[in-house]
Amino acid sequence: MTFTAQVKVMPLKELLDPQGKAVLGGFQNLGFSGIRDVRIGKNISLQIDADTAETAKQIAEEAAGKLLANPVMEMFEITIS
Amino acid sequence: MTFTAQVKVMPLKELLDPQGKAVLGGFQNLGFSGIRDVRIGKNISLQIDADTAETAKQIAEEAAGKLLANPVMEMFEITIS
Repeated sequence: MTFTAQVKVMPLKELLDPQGKAVLGGFQNLGFSGIRDVRIGKNISLQIDADTAETAKQIAEEAAGKLLANPVMEMFEITIS
Repeated sequence: MTFTAQVKVMPLKELLDPQGKAVLGGFQNLGFSGIRDVRIGKNISLQIDADTAETAKQIAEEAAGKLLANPVMEMFEITIS
């Protein structure tokens, strides 16, 4: 069976996010006064062949830890569907 | 009240995703044989001051359409929490 894993990779809360700050400045210039903070990360969609959703999640976790996220600067969350 | 909007921006299905293809090649080199396809997009987290979740969603949709996503190449989904 093929499962879809969504891997959300975001910069750690403790760290500055200069890309997010730049986009926040853009929103202020465009007049979006209600937006208080912006943080930008990645969303990676993986198509995984596996017997069960549990196995697919394990593969996605190993993949995220080895290649998709840098644990020094980023955290990740995985959703299987 | 402050709401958190997660804006997921992904390349349209009809388009090639060279970044995803490069990462897929990386997985094959690392021996992840179960991963069939990779597509890479952005995940943007917005903190929005608004009276209701409905208003926050409208602000997030306008923000995504004007600045975060390029409708020619990308689609976006918004989740409010």
